[in-house]
Order: sequence, then structure tokens, then C-alpha cells
Amino acid sequence: MDQGTGGMMMLRGLGGAGLGALENEIQLIELAGKYGFQAVDIDAVTLIERVGEKKAKELLSDNGVVIGSIGLPVNWRSTEEEFLNGLKKLGEHAAAARLLGCTRCCTYILPSTDYPSAHFMALATRRLRSCAQMLGAYGIGLGLEFVGPHHLRTQWANPFIWTMDETLDWIAAIGESNVGLLLDSYHWYTTSSTIADILALKPEQIVHVHLNDAPNVPVEAALDGGRIYPGEGVIDLAGFLKGLHAIGYAGPVAQEILAQKPREGTPEELVRHSKECYDKVFGAAGLQ
Amino acid sequence: MDQGTGGMMMLRGLGGAGLGALENEIQLIELAGKYGFQAVDIDAVTLIERVGEKKAKELLSDNGVVIGSIGLPVNWRSTEEEFLNGLKKLGEHAAAARLLGCTRCCTYILPSTDYPSAHFMALATRRLRSCAQMLGAYGIGLGLEFVGPHHLRTQWANPFIWTMDETLDWIAAIGESNVGLLLDSYHWYTTSSTIADILALKPEQIVHVHLNDAPNVPVEAALDGGRIYPGEGVIDLAGFLKGLHAIGYAGPVAQEILAQKPREGTPEELVRHSKECYDKVFGAAGLQ
Amino acid sequence: MDQGTGGMMMLRGLGGAGLGALENEIQLIELAGKYGFQAVDIDAVTLIERVGEKKAKELLSDNGVVIGSIGLPVNWRSTEEEFLNGLKKLGEHAAAARLLGCTRCCTYILPSTDYPSAHFMALATRRLRSCAQMLGAYGIGLGLEFVGPHHLRTQWANPFIWTMDETLDWIAAIGESNVGLLLDSYHWYTTSSTIADILALKPEQIVHVHLNDAPNVPVEAALDGGRIYPGEGVIDLAGFLKGLHAIGYAGPVAQEILAQKPREGTPEELVRHSKECYDKVFGAAGLQ
Amino acid sequence: MDQGTGGMMMLRGLGGAGLGALENEIQLIELAGKYGFQAVDIDAVTLIERVGEKKAKELLSDNGVVIGSIGLPVNWRSTEEEFLNGLKKLGEHAAAARLLGCTRCCTYILPSTDYPSAHFMALATRRLRSCAQMLGAYGIGLGLEFVGPHHLRTQWANPFIWTMDETLDWIAAIGESNVGLLLDSYHWYTTSSTIADILALKPEQIVHVHLNDAPNVPVEAALDGGRIYPGEGVIDLAGFLKGLHAIGYAGPVAQEILAQKPREGTPEELVRHSKECYDKVFGAAGLQ
Repeated sequence: MDQGTGGMMMLRGLGGAGLGALENEIQLIELAGKYGFQAVDIDAVTLIERVGEKKAKELLSDNGVVIGSIGLPVNWRSTEEEFLNGLKKLGEHAAAARLLGCTRCCTYILPSTDYPSAHFMALATRRLRSCAQMLGAYGIGLGLEFVGPHHLRTQWANPFIWTMDETLDWIAAIGESNVGLLLDSYHWYTTSSTIADILALKPEQIVHVHLNDAPNVPVEAALDGGRIYPGEGVIDLAGFLKGLHAIGYAGPVAQEILAQKPREGTPEELVRHSKECYDKVFGAAGLQ
Repeated sequence: MDQGTGGMMMLRGLGGAGLGALENEIQLIELAGKYGFQAVDIDAVTLIERVGEKKAKELLSDNGVVIGSIGLPVNWRSTEEEFLNGLKKLGEHAAAARLLGCTRCCTYILPSTDYPSAHFMALATRRLRSCAQMLGAYGIGLGLEFVGPHHLRTQWANPFIWTMDETLDWIAAIGESNVGLLLDSYHWYTTSSTIADILALKPEQIVHVHLNDAPNVPVEAALDGGRIYPGEGVIDLAGFLKGLHAIGYAGPVAQEILAQKPREGTPEELVRHSKECYDKVFGAAGLQ
Repeated sequence: MDQGTGGMMMLRGLGGAGLGALENEIQLIELAGKYGFQAVDIDAVTLIERVGEKKAKELLSDNGVVIGSIGLPVNWRSTEEEFLNGLKKLGEHAAAARLLGCTRCCTYILPSTDYPSAHFMALATRRLRSCAQMLGAYGIGLGLEFVGPHHLRTQWANPFIWTMDETLDWIAAIGESNVGLLLDSYHWYTTSSTIADILALKPEQIVHVHLNDAPNVPVEAALDGGRIYPGEGVIDLAGFLKGLHAIGYAGPVAQEILAQKPREGTPEELVRHSKECYDKVFGAAGLQ
Repeated sequence: MDQGTGGMMMLRGLGGAGLGALENEIQLIELAGKYGFQAVDIDAVTLIERVGEKKAKELLSDNGVVIGSIGLPVNWRSTEEEFLNGLKKLGEHAAAARLLGCTRCCTYILPSTDYPSAHFMALATRRLRSCAQMLGAYGIGLGLEFVGPHHLRTQWANPFIWTMDETLDWIAAIGESNVGLLLDSYHWYTTSSTIADILALKPEQIVHVHLNDAPNVPVEAALDGGRIYPGEGVIDLAGFLKGLHAIGYAGPVAQEILAQKPREGTPEELVRHSKECYDKVFGAAGLQ
């Protein structure tokens, strides 16, 4: 029984990465519901364009699933033109997410950049602030995902940021109240973060969570595209989940398996396997 | 010769109000250019939808005209749903304005409201901030027009704001650097504002200017829908324009004739008449 | 046993109002600790000036007491000069509070004003934003207390705001992430707020809580200076506390008895009585 | 005659650097007034503490001098504790500056840092925002001075920022409307900036200006501590000043001669020399 969140449980969530050749988000919603997942990470505009608002809402509620998070549809890492081309559509995405009851939008932070680091930080701060402001009007939080794998720190010319603390400082610099962390277990692991780091957080500092595991290789060698399913690897996911629960985080925990060599199997087989993995790690954490 | 603005002149602008049965914004652009106006207040999205981006740019440059200001396409005075329905499209409007080189977007402030005044001020502050933030990303300033006619102060149940100073304080409360005044001569007149009030402004506090005149009636009786053409009435427009010029304002001065009983004449006749009026008042101000 | 907050309990707090002729904040700290209270609402600068930083910290820890909240030492309700005279000292107050481990600062909102309501809302929004910004740099939240007694709504010329919802909208207008509610049971009661209103809040929206009770008079007649001790009156304090606990609020619940005719007794007698009152209402709420 | 600023002239200003062994700011004020300077860069709190508010105001007006700018008394480049220790006093400095009619406060940006660049940019953004917010409440602008000498770009471990464009982007990231540039001719020169760069600015983007000259050495070899008096060197100061005037900048232009080997002479001799230098370069620019 859950003691940590006044009765509120984290939601089991599913992203499409690692589920094979999914037809579309509809199939993801149906498989998620069938195998006990309560949230999916999909694009709200795409779903509504595909089936209409009414049908989209029915699809979600009939399958007992909510949209855990949408992805930020704005490219803030490149030129100003690129950014402005995306920003102008963000209002429609925010409205669509809100329509379908989704309150989270996430983006990842690459730990290195070909731009001069300090200048890029200034540009990115302003751009993400603009995104957070439009999202915030629709009650949507913006989650920033620090990315830990060591190889990415030197993939581009200049180091950017990759730790939880640096990301929290960046969130303060962006200065909008609806910005928080997307905490991904793989990045928590590859930055050698601890359970104490999680326990030091307030639940409202976490917008979203990703779950996955790492193979038994030195942490510096863990590749961003080398993730495996929860419970198959060496990350202390029970500790990770218990920490989140202890601080009162009650949002989605969405699986995201980025793998250069995708697992074999049909989407349904892979979702069933994902369920078994979730049962295992949630069970090990004393959660359901 | 211009002394006040380092060589930069205010632009003669035209809004559609008071020009009779204009077919569309294309006719406004053409007539404006023909009669020596340099700016028009039109909707950028509408123009681009009508003729496409390339043709829209050509239309403007061929006629020697820029878009002085677009109107804010968001209803912030009513329900939150109404507001959010408009806000989600604002990015597209901002992008369209920017595409056509327009840097101003304006909205008017009704001096009374059926909502409880203080609560409505809080709601409107947040809503206009959201608008300003999206516009600001595209380099567009948001001009707030205080509205002076006395009858409007009691048109709705509760007094809101109507003076320049109250509007400047509201701009500070909104807290975005791209928000300023839309200074309309009729509202300057009906709030008994002075030239000293204009001289106390820094030019960057003024986003846009409207020009019109008032009939010879007591100022408390001047109706919002009773405006006449510049130079036909009693407003000290020479002083108004000289004041703007003295502080270095170099943006558009756009005619806006709100009249319950529209002047008779074809759009071309009315634009010709407007030019004569502008020649008269600009001449009286020692400007061109 | 506490189920609602992951093990975290609300703190019993004491303000000086209603405790008779306290000598100073030192006596408040000692009596609070003696009678099982865990937080006091005092001024941090005054305490440090009185006994020095080292001794102030010892006084608090020796008595098992923290500073629940300081009061905002800035007069934002009057002239700009008055405001600026207070704001310049706010940094020192924020630093002092932080030094002593205090993370909350509160101010009350009078429900009417002699200023024009909308204009005053604009001024106050900017002023409270300035306060929140300085406090936020020191990790201090600013709690705004809506004030419910009906007589105060017409005490001054124009209505301002007095409900929880209006205050939440104002917090959004102020736009700083460290601003929240000071929720006082007397004001919750006199605005006819409900437990559902509390359950709709997220705990991070509440900066601080005040506890007190109301005599058995019609709610419209309850005077701001007519409060009595928790459990002596008609407010559903058990429901109030259970609601706070259910949403996970784990901050101080500080007694504040504003009474025109103060209760008789020495400070110690009144603190003992306060403890009995707290035992009664917390017990009725199933809390400790 | 001034055409560029509607009649408003830039002010000749003096900072203490390069004026020998000045006794204190009083001597600077007197010498400035005696030799036709209209602004001094001094600390307002120090002056008021030395002679009191009344006498400070008299000193300034009797000598026909205003305070051009104060320096930011907050160390934002080091630890958070260091920063918070300074920030808490900023209100008093802002109030003192305001009392004496000063509206500018400046700080310099070192072009390299021992901190990781991106993380430091995030921290510094938030810290400077806090400073700007407190200053802004008192009507004071915060000028950020980009620093150009090439040797400083590698003085510390990691490159930060040093160009005008990067600084403008940083100002946008800080997001407060009262933040602008401190444009120093030496840094304009050592970043190979052009007059076109100045002409592209709006005057309100410039909070303050420093004037000095560079010896005839390759620009990459120009040392930060190797500055000489205006007109003694190779910087196109006439073009610099004409550019500022053309865009309508009407604030102070304050001399700042950082020199490892200070010029010989009494303060009065050095101020007289400075006047001659100003006469020369302002004359060359067609200004007075």
C-alpha cells in the first residue's frame, strides 16, 4: 500500500521507443491499456488530426490511459529561424494537449554543442523560456531531460551541461514556474547520481520520468542508444522508484528504450515484455 | 526639416475605419500608397492568405507602404476559454507580421467592465503578459490603447482604467519589455491629457499612434463613435504631433475615424480627404 | 498515523497575537518549545539584533522550534515612496530569515481600498512581484493572505479581492514561482470556502497556514478582530486540517488570535491553553 | 549644433580610473565640474555616508555634475554565498543612487571563467536578473560591459562571452527591461566592432558609455590595463562618438583609463588633460 503520496500512485507509462514497429499512436494506446499501463507519451496534435477530438478522448478513456507527456515540437538547438518556425505552432500543440488532459511536455538537453557554450546557453535560455510561457498558459509543464552518457559529452565541439544540479540551475535561469526535470533512469545512472539526489528533490520539481536499464558495462561506456528494458540490467531501479515515491512524486514513469539494435518481437510482444519488466522493478520497490 | 529625431520622421498611417466601403486590405494598401501614406493597419495573416507571402511583400513595397500595426487577435476581455482559443493562434499571427516586416500589435482597453475590477485586472494582466511574450519572440511590440470617452466609463458596471498614467502603471505590472502605449489623439483629448504628458514620455514607451479629431462639444460629451478627420475639430493636433516629434517618436501615426454615421464618399475620396487633413495638421505642426 | 504526506507532519506553530503581554520573541520561542509547538512567527532581523546570529540559532534549536514565517516588512498598500523605503531593506530581512532557516514570508490583502481598484491592483502586482523576487533569491516563499470578514469589504471605498480563487488569480498575475497562499481558517470560513476548495489545491500553492476559530454568529457578522482559540468556536477545523493533510501540506499551522478584547491570562497560561486547543482540533482531525 | 537627439547632448563623464591619487569622490566631483565634465561615476552610498544626503545633493548641483553611473556592488562571479551577501545590500545602493538622481549601474563581464561556461552562464543569468529586478524598482538601468582584450579570453580556463552580439543575446536571456550595454570604446575596438554595429543599436539598448583609447599595437595585443587617454591612440573615437550621437544616445560618455603604469600628474593635471582630450575627440566628431 502506498504510504508516500497520500494515496497517490505513480503511473506506469509507455513511450513508443523500444516497442518495435508500432503502426501509430492508436496501437500504442490500445496495447498500453491492455497491459496495465496508464499513460502514453504521444503527440496530441497527431492523434486529434488522425481521429478527431471526440474519438481521441474516447480512445484514451476507453483504454484507461492518459497522455503522460507530449514532446516539445520546437527545435531550440539550432538557428533562430528554425526556433521561430516551431514556436509559432506551439500554441496549437499546447491547446491540443490540454484538450486531451495532458499536462506535460518534454525536451532533451544534449550535453555538448558545436555552438560556443556560454552563448548557446544564453540563446537556449530565452528560447526555452518562450516555450515554457506558451505551455504554461495551457497548464502544461515543461520537463528538461539532462542526458548522461559520457560519449555524448564530446560528440560535439563544446561541453554544455549534463548533471541534475546544472539542470536545476538552468531551470532557475529560465525563470518560469512550470519548468522542471524530466528524470530518466539511464541519465541518472550515467551521471552517477544517487538516491540522495532524488530525495533532495521536491516532487513539483519533477515534470516527468523515464524508465529503462543499462547493460553491465562500465558507466562511462554506456551508450545512449544501448538501453535495455527495466530490470534487465544493472541500474538500481528499485532504489530509483522508491526514492521518487518517498518524495511524493505521483506522475508517470514512462518506459523509453533507445536501442541501436531494436529488440525483436511484435509491438504486442514487446509491450507484454515491458509489463513483466515493470512488474518486476515496481515489485522490487514495494510498489504496484 | 526634422530636428527632433535624428532625421527620422513619423510615418503617415491609415487604418480602415473612416474610409468607407473598402473592398479589402489590398485596396487600402493601394490607396494609401497613392495618397502619400506610408503605413497601413491591417491583418497580416489575412493578407498572406489572400495573396501569398511573395505577393504580399510586393504589394507593400510596390506601393511604398509598410504594415504599421496588426490588431491583437486574442479576446482577453472575456472567459479563459475564449482567451486560450485566441492565444493558440497568436504565434501564427506574430510570424506573419514579422514576415511582412511589421513590428507592432495593438489592443484597446475598455474603461469599464462587468467583471469585478480588481479581479479582472489580475486576469487581464496575466493574459496580456502571455500575449506580449509570444509577440516579443517575433520582435513585435504590444501597444495598449487607453480609451478616454467619458460615456464608456459607466457603460459597464465597474470602472477599470482610462488614463495614460494608469496605463503606464499597468504596463509595468504586465512586466514585459515590449509593451507600450497606443496613444490615440481622441483618448488623449478626452482624458484631458496635456502636451507635458507627451513630453514626459520616452519614445520607446509608445508603440503606435492613432490620429483623429473631435467635434466642438464638451469633452465629457465626446462619443467614442463620434470622431472626425484630423484638422476638422478642436483637438490640438499640432501640439500633439509636435510633442511626439520632440521626444523622438518616429513610428506610424495612423488615422482611425470611428464614426456611428460614416462620412459619405468612395474609399478613394475619403483617402484623398484624409491626405488633405494630414497635410493640414502636419503642416500646422511644422512637420511633413 | 500520518498517511497523507509520506510521513511528513504539519508543524504546530504560534504567532504572538492572542498570547497576552509577551515580553519579546525570545519568550515566545521558549513558551512555544515548552508546550510542544514547533514553529513561531517572528521577525528574524529583530531576533538577530537582539541576541546575535549564533545565540538566535541556539535559542531556536534548543527549544526545538523553527521560524515558521516572517512578516513582509514592506508597506505595499500606500505610496510608491513608502514602498521603496521598505523594499530597500527587504534583502537584509530575507538574508536574516535564511540564516535562521526560515523559508516563508507573509502579507495580508485588505479586501477593500480607498484607491481605485483596478489601478491599485496594477500597482500592487508590480510591488509584490518586486518583493517576491528579492525573497526568492534567498529561497523564501511569499504567502498572500486573503481576508474574509465581510465588514472589511466595505471598510474602504472600493472593493478589492477577498476569495481564494481571486487570490490564486492574483498570484498568477504576479508571476513569480515563490508566491502562494497564506490560508487562514478564519478567512476560509468567512469567505464560505469549502473543504473541496482545499482539496483542489496542490500543497506547493500554500506557503503558510493560520489557525483560529470563530464565535457562533452569522458568518457575515464575524469580525476580523473577533477571533477565538481553535476548537472554541464553529469553524470546521477538523475538516480544514484533514483537507490540508490530505493534499500533503506539511508546513506550519500557526495560531493567530486577533481579538479586540484580548483573553485574560499570562502568556504562559495562554500558550498552555493554545496547546490544549491544538490537541483538541488536531485530535479531532486524526492528526498529532 | 546637435541634430541627432532632438537637442539632447551626450554628457561628458569622468570615472576615477586614470586620474591619479584622487583623495575621494568629492575631489572628483569638484574637478569634474571645474573642467566642464557633467557626470561622474562614483558610489552613491559612500558619498552619502561621507557628507549626508543634503550635502551630497548640493555638492553635485553646485558643481553642475550628476552621477553618471554607480558600480554594481554585488559579486555575481563567484559563489552563491558571495552573491547573496552582496544582493541583500543592493536595495540600499539603489535607493541611494535614486536619491541622488542617478539612473545607471554597471558591471563588467570577464570573457573567460574557471567555471564550466554553460553552467556559469545559467548561474550568472539568474544572479544578474535578481540584481536588475532590485535596481529596476528604483528606476535604475543595469549596464553590462563586454570586455574585448584578447589576453583575457584565455586568462581563465573556459571561454565565456566577449562580443556585443553575445552580450545582447545575454541581455535577452536575463529578460529584464532595464538591462542594456555598457559600451566601452576599448572593448568595441578590441572586438573589432564597427560603426555599423553602433548604428544598429537603439539608444535605449545602451545604458552607459566608457571612453578611452588604445596604443598603436596590434589589436590582439592590446592589454586591458594598457589604455590611454581619448585621442592619444588609434581608436576611431570620432566615428564611435558620431555613431552614438546618430542613433540618439544622450547619456554619459565617461572616461575610464585602466593603466598598469598610471600617468604621472596630480589629479587636477590629469583632469585638465582629460578635458583637452575630450575637446579633441568630441571636436573631431563635430560634437561639443
